[in-house]
Amino acid sequence: MSSRAVVLLSGGLDSATTLAIARDKGCACYALSFDYGQRHRAELKAAAKVATSLGAIAHKIISLDLKSIGGSALTDMSIAVPEHETSGIPITYVPARNTVFLSLALGWAEVLGAENIYIGVNAVDYSGYPDCRPEFIAAFEVMANLATKVAVEGNPIRIVTPLIDMSKQDIIETGVRLGVDFTITTSCYQVDGEGRACGLCESCRIRKSGFKEAGLKDPTRYL
Amino acid sequence: MSSRAVVLLSGGLDSATTLAIARDKGCACYALSFDYGQRHRAELKAAAKVATSLGAIAHKIISLDLKSIGGSALTDMSIAVPEHETSGIPITYVPARNTVFLSLALGWAEVLGAENIYIGVNAVDYSGYPDCRPEFIAAFEVMANLATKVAVEGNPIRIVTPLIDMSKQDIIETGVRLGVDFTITTSCYQVDGEGRACGLCESCRIRKSGFKEAGLKDPTRYL
Repeated sequence: MSSRAVVLLSGGLDSATTLAIARDKGCACYALSFDYGQRHRAELKAAAKVATSLGAIAHKIISLDLKSIGGSALTDMSIAVPEHETSGIPITYVPARNTVFLSLALGWAEVLGAENIYIGVNAVDYSGYPDCRPEFIAAFEVMANLATKVAVEGNPIRIVTPLIDMSKQDIIETGVRLGVDFTITTSCYQVDGEGRACGLCESCRIRKSGFKEAGLKDPTRYL
Repeated sequence: MSSRAVVLLSGGLDSATTLAIARDKGCACYALSFDYGQRHRAELKAAAKVATSLGAIAHKIISLDLKSIGGSALTDMSIAVPEHETSGIPITYVPARNTVFLSLALGWAEVLGAENIYIGVNAVDYSGYPDCRPEFIAAFEVMANLATKVAVEGNPIRIVTPLIDMSKQDIIETGVRLGVDFTITTSCYQVDGEGRACGLCESCRIRKSGFKEAGLKDPTRYL
Protein backbone atom coordinates (compact mmCIF):
# COMPACT_ATOMS: atom_id res chain seq x y z
CA MET A 1 0.00 0.00 0.00
CA SER A 2 1.30 3.43 -0.84
CA SER A 3 1.67 5.88 1.97
CA ARG A 4 -1.52 7.73 2.85
CA ALA A 5 -1.80 11.44 3.49
CA VAL A 6 -4.54 13.70 4.78
CA VAL A 7 -4.04 17.02 2.98
CA LEU A 8 -5.60 20.22 4.32
CA LEU A 9 -7.16 21.93 1.33
CA SER A 10 -8.55 25.45 1.45
CA GLY A 11 -8.95 25.90 -2.28
CA GLY A 12 -6.11 28.42 -2.41
CA LEU A 13 -2.83 28.41 -4.21
CA ASP A 14 -0.71 27.05 -1.35
CA SER A 15 -2.86 24.10 -0.41
CA ALA A 16 -3.35 23.13 -4.09
CA THR A 17 0.42 23.03 -4.53
CA THR A 18 0.74 21.06 -1.29
CA LEU A 19 -1.70 18.45 -2.59
CA ALA A 20 0.25 18.23 -5.85
CA ILE A 21 3.49 17.69 -3.89
CA ALA A 22 1.96 14.97 -1.71
CA ARG A 23 0.73 13.16 -4.81
CA ASP A 24 4.12 13.59 -6.46
CA LYS A 25 5.70 11.91 -3.41
CA GLY A 26 3.50 8.89 -4.13
CA CYS A 27 0.93 9.43 -1.39
CA ALA A 28 -2.68 8.36 -1.69
CA CYS A 29 -4.26 11.73 -0.82
CA TYR A 30 -7.36 12.42 1.27
CA ALA A 31 -8.27 16.09 0.99
CA LEU A 32 -9.90 17.82 3.96
CA SER A 33 -11.71 21.17 3.95
CA PHE A 34 -13.80 23.03 6.50
CA ASP A 35 -17.09 24.83 6.24
CA TYR A 36 -16.32 26.90 9.33
CA GLY A 37 -18.40 30.00 8.87
CA GLN A 38 -15.78 31.73 6.76
CA ARG A 39 -16.61 34.91 4.91
CA HIS A 40 -15.01 33.47 1.75
CA ARG A 41 -17.07 30.28 1.74
CA ALA A 42 -16.83 30.18 -2.06
CA GLU A 43 -13.35 28.74 -1.52
CA LEU A 44 -15.03 25.39 -0.85
CA LYS A 45 -16.12 25.16 -4.49
CA ALA A 46 -12.53 25.79 -5.51
CA ALA A 47 -11.34 23.13 -3.05
CA ALA A 48 -13.68 20.55 -4.59
CA LYS A 49 -12.39 21.34 -8.08
CA VAL A 50 -8.77 21.17 -6.94
CA ALA A 51 -9.30 17.83 -5.18
CA THR A 52 -10.78 16.30 -8.32
CA SER A 53 -8.24 17.87 -10.64
CA LEU A 54 -5.30 16.57 -8.58
CA GLY A 55 -6.66 13.05 -8.10
CA ALA A 56 -7.50 13.01 -4.39
CA ILE A 57 -8.99 9.66 -3.33
CA ALA A 58 -11.61 11.50 -1.31
CA HIS A 59 -12.53 15.06 -0.37
CA LYS A 60 -14.25 15.58 2.96
CA ILE A 61 -15.76 18.88 4.10
CA ILE A 62 -16.32 19.02 7.85
CA SER A 63 -18.85 21.50 9.21
CA LEU A 64 -17.66 23.43 12.20
CA ASP A 65 -19.02 26.65 13.61
CA LEU A 66 -16.09 28.98 14.26
CA LYS A 67 -18.44 31.96 13.85
CA SER A 68 -19.69 31.25 17.34
CA ILE A 69 -16.17 31.95 18.62
CA GLY A 70 -15.54 34.95 16.34
CA GLY A 71 -12.57 37.22 16.97
CA SER A 72 -11.53 37.50 13.31
CA ALA A 73 -12.48 39.45 10.20
CA LEU A 74 -12.88 36.08 8.47
CA THR A 75 -15.56 34.75 10.85
CA ASP A 76 -17.15 37.94 12.18
CA MET A 77 -18.88 39.85 9.37
CA SER A 78 -18.94 43.04 11.47
CA ILE A 79 -15.12 43.27 11.27
CA ALA A 80 -13.92 44.57 7.87
CA VAL A 81 -11.15 42.82 5.94
CA PRO A 82 -8.23 45.28 5.69
CA GLU A 83 -7.48 46.39 2.13
CA HIS A 84 -4.05 47.83 2.88
CA GLU A 85 -1.04 46.78 4.91
CA THR A 86 -1.45 46.64 8.70
CA SER A 87 1.14 46.13 11.43
CA GLY A 88 1.40 43.10 13.73
CA ILE A 89 -0.70 39.97 13.44
CA PRO A 90 -3.61 40.93 11.14
CA ILE A 91 -7.27 40.90 12.14
CA THR A 92 -7.79 38.15 9.53
CA TYR A 93 -6.00 35.78 11.93
CA VAL A 94 -8.60 33.22 13.10
CA PRO A 95 -7.92 32.19 16.72
CA ALA A 96 -6.45 28.68 16.85
CA ARG A 97 -7.61 27.88 13.31
CA ASN A 98 -4.65 25.78 12.20
CA THR A 99 -4.65 24.00 15.56
CA VAL A 100 -8.31 23.11 15.10
CA PHE A 101 -7.86 22.08 11.45
CA LEU A 102 -4.79 19.95 12.20
CA SER A 103 -6.60 18.32 15.13
CA LEU A 104 -9.46 17.24 12.90
CA ALA A 105 -6.98 16.08 10.26
CA LEU A 106 -5.33 14.06 13.02
CA GLY A 107 -8.61 12.35 13.85
CA TRP A 108 -9.24 11.46 10.22
CA ALA A 109 -5.62 10.32 9.73
CA GLU A 110 -6.01 7.99 12.67
CA VAL A 111 -9.19 6.43 11.24
CA LEU A 112 -7.63 6.09 7.76
CA GLY A 113 -4.31 4.78 9.06
CA ALA A 114 -2.60 7.70 7.28
CA GLU A 115 0.99 8.35 8.34
CA ASN A 116 1.14 11.90 7.00
CA ILE A 117 -0.75 15.14 7.38
CA TYR A 118 0.18 17.75 4.77
CA ILE A 119 -0.43 21.42 5.46
CA GLY A 120 0.56 24.30 3.18
CA VAL A 121 1.82 26.70 5.80
CA ASN A 122 4.53 29.06 4.77
CA ALA A 123 6.76 31.29 6.84
CA VAL A 124 8.22 33.44 4.04
CA ASP A 125 5.53 35.29 2.04
CA TYR A 126 2.87 35.05 4.72
CA SER A 127 0.72 37.15 6.99
CA GLY A 128 2.53 36.66 10.29
CA TYR A 129 -0.02 34.23 11.71
CA PRO A 130 1.57 32.44 14.71
CA ASP A 131 0.16 29.08 13.62
CA CYS A 132 2.09 29.15 10.35
CA ARG A 133 5.53 29.01 11.98
CA PRO A 134 7.79 25.93 11.98
CA GLU A 135 8.06 25.91 15.78
CA PHE A 136 4.28 25.62 16.03
CA ILE A 137 4.20 22.73 13.55
CA ALA A 138 7.00 20.89 15.37
CA ALA A 139 5.16 21.25 18.69
CA PHE A 140 1.92 20.07 17.11
CA GLU A 141 3.64 16.94 15.81
CA VAL A 142 5.04 16.11 19.25
CA MET A 143 1.59 16.57 20.78
CA ALA A 144 -0.11 14.52 18.04
CA ASN A 145 2.14 11.58 18.73
CA LEU A 146 1.10 11.59 22.37
CA ALA A 147 -2.58 12.14 21.60
CA THR A 148 -3.48 9.19 19.45
CA LYS A 149 -3.98 5.46 19.70
CA VAL A 150 -2.02 4.77 16.50
CA ALA A 151 0.98 6.73 17.71
CA VAL A 152 0.91 5.14 21.16
CA GLU A 153 0.82 1.78 19.40
CA GLY A 154 3.98 2.60 17.46
CA ASN A 155 2.91 4.25 14.20
CA PRO A 156 3.93 7.89 14.40
CA ILE A 157 2.18 10.58 12.42
CA ARG A 158 4.19 13.21 10.57
CA ILE A 159 3.07 16.76 9.95
CA VAL A 160 4.54 17.62 6.55
CA THR A 161 5.00 21.25 5.49
CA PRO A 162 6.60 21.23 2.03
CA LEU A 163 6.06 24.98 1.49
CA ILE A 164 7.45 26.18 4.80
CA ASP A 165 10.62 27.75 3.39
CA MET A 166 9.38 28.66 -0.08
CA SER A 167 8.67 32.13 -1.41
CA LYS A 168 5.32 32.65 -3.13
CA GLN A 169 7.23 32.60 -6.41
CA ASP A 170 8.74 29.17 -5.58
CA ILE A 171 5.31 27.85 -4.65
CA ILE A 172 3.77 29.00 -7.92
CA GLU A 173 6.65 27.60 -9.98
CA THR A 174 6.45 24.26 -8.15
CA GLY A 175 2.69 24.14 -8.67
CA VAL A 176 3.07 24.82 -12.39
CA ARG A 177 5.69 22.08 -12.70
CA LEU A 178 3.41 19.59 -10.95
CA GLY A 179 0.38 20.42 -13.06
CA VAL A 180 -1.66 22.59 -10.69
CA ASP A 181 -4.32 24.55 -12.56
CA PHE A 182 -4.22 27.86 -10.68
CA THR A 183 -7.24 29.16 -12.59
CA ILE A 184 -9.46 27.00 -10.34
CA THR A 185 -7.87 28.13 -7.06
CA THR A 186 -9.14 31.02 -4.92
CA SER A 187 -7.10 32.98 -2.40
CA CYS A 188 -9.24 36.05 -1.77
CA TYR A 189 -10.72 36.66 1.68
CA GLN A 190 -13.61 38.50 0.03
CA VAL A 191 -14.19 36.28 -3.00
CA ASP A 192 -17.73 36.63 -4.33
CA GLY A 193 -20.18 33.86 -5.19
CA GLU A 194 -18.91 33.88 -8.79
CA GLY A 195 -15.35 33.21 -7.65
CA ARG A 196 -14.11 36.76 -8.39
CA ALA A 197 -11.35 38.16 -6.15
CA CYS A 198 -11.21 41.66 -4.61
CA GLY A 199 -7.57 42.19 -5.52
CA LEU A 200 -7.11 44.31 -2.40
CA CYS A 201 -6.95 42.06 0.68
CA GLU A 202 -3.60 40.81 1.94
CA SER A 203 -4.16 37.35 0.50
CA CYS A 204 -4.82 38.86 -2.96
CA ARG A 205 -1.80 41.15 -2.66
CA ILE A 206 0.57 38.27 -1.76
CA ARG A 207 -0.85 36.14 -4.58
CA LYS A 208 -0.56 38.92 -7.14
CA SER A 209 3.06 39.64 -6.36
CA GLY A 210 3.83 35.90 -6.48
CA PHE A 211 2.67 35.65 -10.08
CA LYS A 212 4.52 38.83 -10.93
CA GLU A 213 7.77 37.52 -9.41
CA ALA A 214 7.34 34.20 -11.20
CA GLY A 215 6.96 36.13 -14.47
CA LEU A 216 3.60 34.46 -15.08
CA LYS A 217 0.28 35.88 -16.12
CA ASP A 218 -1.99 36.10 -13.06
CA PRO A 219 -4.97 33.85 -13.93
CA THR A 220 -7.13 35.26 -11.11
CA ARG A 221 -10.50 36.72 -12.05
CA TYR A 222 -10.80 40.07 -10.31
CA LEU A 223 -13.93 42.08 -9.60
CA MET B 1 -10.69 41.36 36.84
CA SER B 2 -10.72 37.83 38.17
CA SER B 3 -8.92 35.21 36.17
CA ARG B 4 -10.97 33.76 33.32
CA ALA B 5 -11.23 30.08 32.48
CA VAL B 6 -12.73 28.13 29.62
CA VAL B 7 -13.96 24.87 31.14
CA LEU B 8 -14.67 21.83 28.96
CA LEU B 9 -18.00 20.50 30.15
CA SER B 10 -19.42 17.18 28.96
CA GLY B 11 -22.21 16.95 31.50
CA GLY B 12 -20.49 14.10 33.32
CA LEU B 13 -19.22 13.76 36.83
CA ASP B 14 -15.60 14.70 36.12
CA SER B 15 -16.21 17.88 34.15
CA ALA B 16 -18.84 19.08 36.65
CA THR B 17 -16.29 18.70 39.46
CA THR B 18 -13.70 20.46 37.30
CA LEU B 19 -16.05 23.42 36.82
CA ALA B 20 -16.66 23.54 40.58
CA ILE B 21 -12.91 23.56 41.22
CA ALA B 22 -12.29 26.34 38.68
CA ARG B 23 -14.99 28.43 40.35
CA ASP B 24 -13.58 27.65 43.78
CA LYS B 25 -10.19 28.97 42.59
CA GLY B 26 -11.92 32.27 41.83
CA CYS B 27 -12.12 31.96 38.06
CA ALA B 28 -14.88 33.50 35.98
CA CYS B 29 -15.91 30.32 34.14
CA TYR B 30 -16.96 29.95 30.50
CA ALA B 31 -18.29 26.44 29.95
CA LEU B 32 -17.82 24.78 26.56
CA SER B 33 -19.61 21.69 25.23
CA PHE B 34 -19.75 20.01 21.84
CA ASP B 35 -22.62 18.66 19.81
CA TYR B 36 -20.29 16.36 17.88
CA GLY B 37 -22.53 13.56 16.72
CA GLN B 38 -22.18 11.64 19.95
CA ARG B 39 -24.43 8.68 20.66
CA HIS B 40 -25.10 10.05 24.14
CA ARG B 41 -26.21 13.48 22.98
CA ALA B 42 -28.52 13.72 26.00
CA GLU B 43 -25.38 14.66 27.95
CA LEU B 44 -25.77 18.19 26.50
CA LYS B 45 -28.92 18.72 28.55
CA ALA B 46 -26.98 17.69 31.63
CA ALA B 47 -24.14 20.05 30.67
CA ALA B 48 -26.56 22.99 30.44
CA LYS B 49 -27.98 22.20 33.88
CA VAL B 50 -24.51 21.85 35.40
CA ALA B 51 -23.32 25.14 33.86
CA THR B 52 -26.29 26.98 35.37
CA SER B 53 -26.08 25.21 38.68
CA LEU B 54 -22.39 26.03 39.12
CA GLY B 55 -22.63 29.66 38.03
CA ALA B 56 -20.85 29.64 34.67
CA ILE B 57 -20.84 33.10 33.07
CA ALA B 58 -21.70 31.53 29.73
CA HIS B 59 -22.24 28.07 28.25
CA LYS B 60 -21.41 27.61 24.59
CA ILE B 61 -22.23 24.49 22.60
CA ILE B 62 -20.23 24.23 19.38
CA SER B 63 -21.56 22.04 16.58
CA LEU B 64 -18.97 19.83 15.01
CA ASP B 65 -19.50 16.75 12.89
CA LEU B 66 -17.18 14.03 14.20
CA LYS B 67 -19.58 11.38 12.85
CA SER B 68 -18.15 12.07 9.41
CA ILE B 69 -14.77 10.87 10.70
CA GLY B 70 -16.16 7.94 12.69
CA GLY B 71 -13.84 5.27 14.04
CA SER B 72 -15.48 5.04 17.47
CA ALA B 73 -18.46 3.39 19.11
CA LEU B 74 -19.46 6.85 20.31
CA THR B 75 -19.75 8.40 16.85
CA ASP B 76 -20.50 5.37 14.64
CA MET B 77 -23.86 3.85 15.54
CA SER B 78 -22.95 0.60 13.77
CA ILE B 79 -20.26 -0.11 16.41
CA ALA B 80 -21.73 -1.38 19.70
CA VAL B 81 -20.68 0.09 23.05
CA PRO B 82 -18.98 -2.73 25.02
CA GLU B 83 -20.88 -3.75 28.14
CA HIS B 84 -18.03 -5.66 29.75
CA GLU B 85 -14.31 -5.10 30.23
CA THR B 86 -12.14 -5.10 27.08
CA SER B 87 -8.35 -5.06 26.73
CA GLY B 88 -6.25 -2.21 25.29
CA ILE B 89 -7.63 1.18 24.30
CA PRO B 90 -11.42 0.72 24.12
CA ILE B 91 -13.50 1.17 20.97
CA THR B 92 -15.23 4.09 22.73
CA TYR B 93 -12.03 6.10 22.19
CA VAL B 94 -12.88 8.92 19.74
CA PRO B 95 -9.87 9.69 17.50
CA ALA B 96 -8.25 12.96 18.53
CA ARG B 97 -11.31 14.08 20.49
CA ASN B 98 -9.56 15.82 23.36
CA THR B 99 -7.13 17.42 20.90
CA VAL B 100 -10.05 18.81 18.90
CA PHE B 101 -11.95 19.95 22.00
CA LEU B 102 -8.90 21.61 23.54
CA SER B 103 -8.13 23.33 20.22
CA LEU B 104 -11.59 24.87 20.10
CA ALA B 105 -11.29 25.82 23.77
CA LEU B 106 -8.00 27.48 22.86
CA GLY B 107 -9.71 29.55 20.16
CA TRP B 108 -12.41 30.69 22.56
CA ALA B 109 -9.88 31.37 25.32
CA GLU B 110 -7.96 33.60 22.95
CA VAL B 111 -11.07 35.62 22.04
CA LEU B 112 -12.11 35.92 25.71
CA GLY B 113 -8.64 36.73 26.95
CA ALA B 114 -8.88 33.71 29.28
CA GLU B 115 -5.59 32.55 30.77
CA ASN B 116 -6.81 29.08 31.71
CA ILE B 117 -8.41 26.10 30.05
CA TYR B 118 -9.74 23.52 32.51
CA ILE B 119 -10.24 19.93 31.40
CA GLY B 120 -11.34 17.05 33.63
CA VAL B 121 -9.00 14.38 32.35
CA ASN B 122 -7.97 11.76 34.79
CA ALA B 123 -5.24 9.15 34.57
CA VAL B 124 -6.24 6.96 37.53
CA ASP B 125 -9.78 5.55 37.20
CA TYR B 126 -10.00 6.03 33.45
CA SER B 127 -10.38 4.11 30.23
CA GLY B 128 -6.82 4.19 28.93
CA TYR B 129 -7.49 6.87 26.33
CA PRO B 130 -4.13 8.29 25.19
CA ASP B 131 -5.45 11.85 25.24
CA CYS B 132 -6.14 11.71 28.98
CA ARG B 133 -2.50 11.32 30.00
CA PRO B 134 -0.41 14.07 31.62
CA GLU B 135 2.26 13.87 28.91
CA PHE B 136 -0.36 14.64 26.27
CA ILE B 137 -1.66 17.63 28.24
CA ALA B 138 1.85 18.99 28.77
CA ALA B 139 2.60 18.72 25.04
CA PHE B 140 -0.70 20.40 24.18
CA GLU B 141 0.15 23.33 26.44
CA VAL B 142 3.54 23.80 24.80
CA MET B 143 1.90 23.72 21.36
CA ALA B 144 -0.90 26.09 22.42
CA ASN B 145 1.61 28.69 23.51
CA LEU B 146 3.20 28.65 20.07
CA ALA B 147 -0.13 28.61 18.23
CA THR B 148 -1.81 31.75 19.40
CA LYS B 149 -1.53 35.49 19.07
CA VAL B 150 -2.06 36.07 22.80
CA ALA B 151 0.72 33.70 23.74
CA VAL B 152 3.11 35.10 21.17
CA GLU B 153 2.33 38.53 22.58
CA GLY B 154 3.33 37.40 26.08
CA ASN B 155 0.19 36.08 27.78
CA PRO B 156 0.64 32.34 28.12
CA ILE B 157 -2.33 29.99 28.34
CA ARG B 158 -2.36 27.22 30.93
CA ILE B 159 -4.09 23.87 30.50
CA VAL B 160 -5.31 22.99 34.00
CA THR B 161 -6.14 19.39 34.94
CA PRO B 162 -7.18 19.36 38.59
CA LEU B 163 -8.42 15.75 38.47
CA ILE B 164 -5.38 14.22 36.80
CA ASP B 165 -4.13 12.30 39.86
CA MET B 166 -7.43 11.74 41.64
CA SER B 167 -9.28 8.47 42.02
CA LYS B 168 -12.98 8.47 41.11
CA GLN B 169 -13.68 8.41 44.84
CA ASP B 170 -11.56 11.57 45.36
CA ILE B 171 -13.36 13.30 42.49
CA ILE B 172 -16.78 12.51 43.92
CA GLU B 173 -15.79 13.62 47.41
CA THR B 174 -14.31 16.86 46.06
CA GLY B 175 -17.45 17.49 44.02
CA VAL B 176 -19.67 16.95 47.04
CA ARG B 177 -17.54 19.33 49.11
CA LEU B 178 -17.80 22.03 46.43
CA GLY B 179 -21.55 21.69 46.01
CA VAL B 180 -21.82 19.69 42.79
CA ASP B 181 -25.27 18.18 42.39
CA PHE B 182 -24.40 14.82 40.86
CA THR B 183 -28.05 14.00 40.27
CA ILE B 184 -27.98 16.32 37.24
CA THR B 185 -24.80 14.84 35.73
CA THR B 186 -24.73 12.04 33.15
CA SER B 187 -21.81 9.71 32.48
CA CYS B 188 -23.42 6.90 30.45
CA TYR B 189 -22.37 6.33 26.83
CA GLN B 190 -25.83 4.98 26.10
CA VAL B 191 -27.94 7.39 28.14
CA ASP B 192 -31.51 7.54 26.81
CA GLY B 193 -33.55 10.64 25.99
CA GLU B 194 -34.95 10.63 29.53
CA GLY B 195 -31.45 10.77 31.04
CA ARG B 196 -31.46 7.15 32.25
CA ALA B 197 -28.13 5.32 32.28
CA CYS B 198 -27.48 1.76 31.04
CA GLY B 199 -25.40 0.80 34.08
CA LEU B 200 -23.31 -1.52 31.91
CA CYS B 201 -20.88 0.54 29.79
CA GLU B 202 -17.41 1.29 31.07
CA SER B 203 -18.30 4.87 31.97
CA CYS B 204 -21.24 3.62 34.09
CA ARG B 205 -19.09 0.96 35.71
CA ILE B 206 -16.36 3.43 36.72
CA ARG B 207 -18.98 5.88 38.03
CA LYS B 208 -20.79 3.20 40.02
CA SER B 209 -17.67 1.99 41.75
CA GLY B 210 -16.68 5.59 42.51
CA PHE B 211 -19.87 6.18 44.50
CA LYS B 212 -19.45 2.81 46.20
CA GLU B 213 -15.86 3.62 47.22
CA ALA B 214 -16.92 7.05 48.46
CA GLY B 215 -19.57 5.33 50.58
CA LEU B 216 -22.27 7.45 48.96
CA LYS B 217 -25.63 6.53 47.52
CA ASP B 218 -25.34 6.46 43.72
CA PRO B 219 -27.84 9.12 42.53
CA THR B 220 -27.82 7.87 38.94
CA ARG B 221 -31.14 6.91 37.38
CA TYR B 222 -30.65 3.55 35.70
CA LEU B 223 -32.80 1.91 33.06
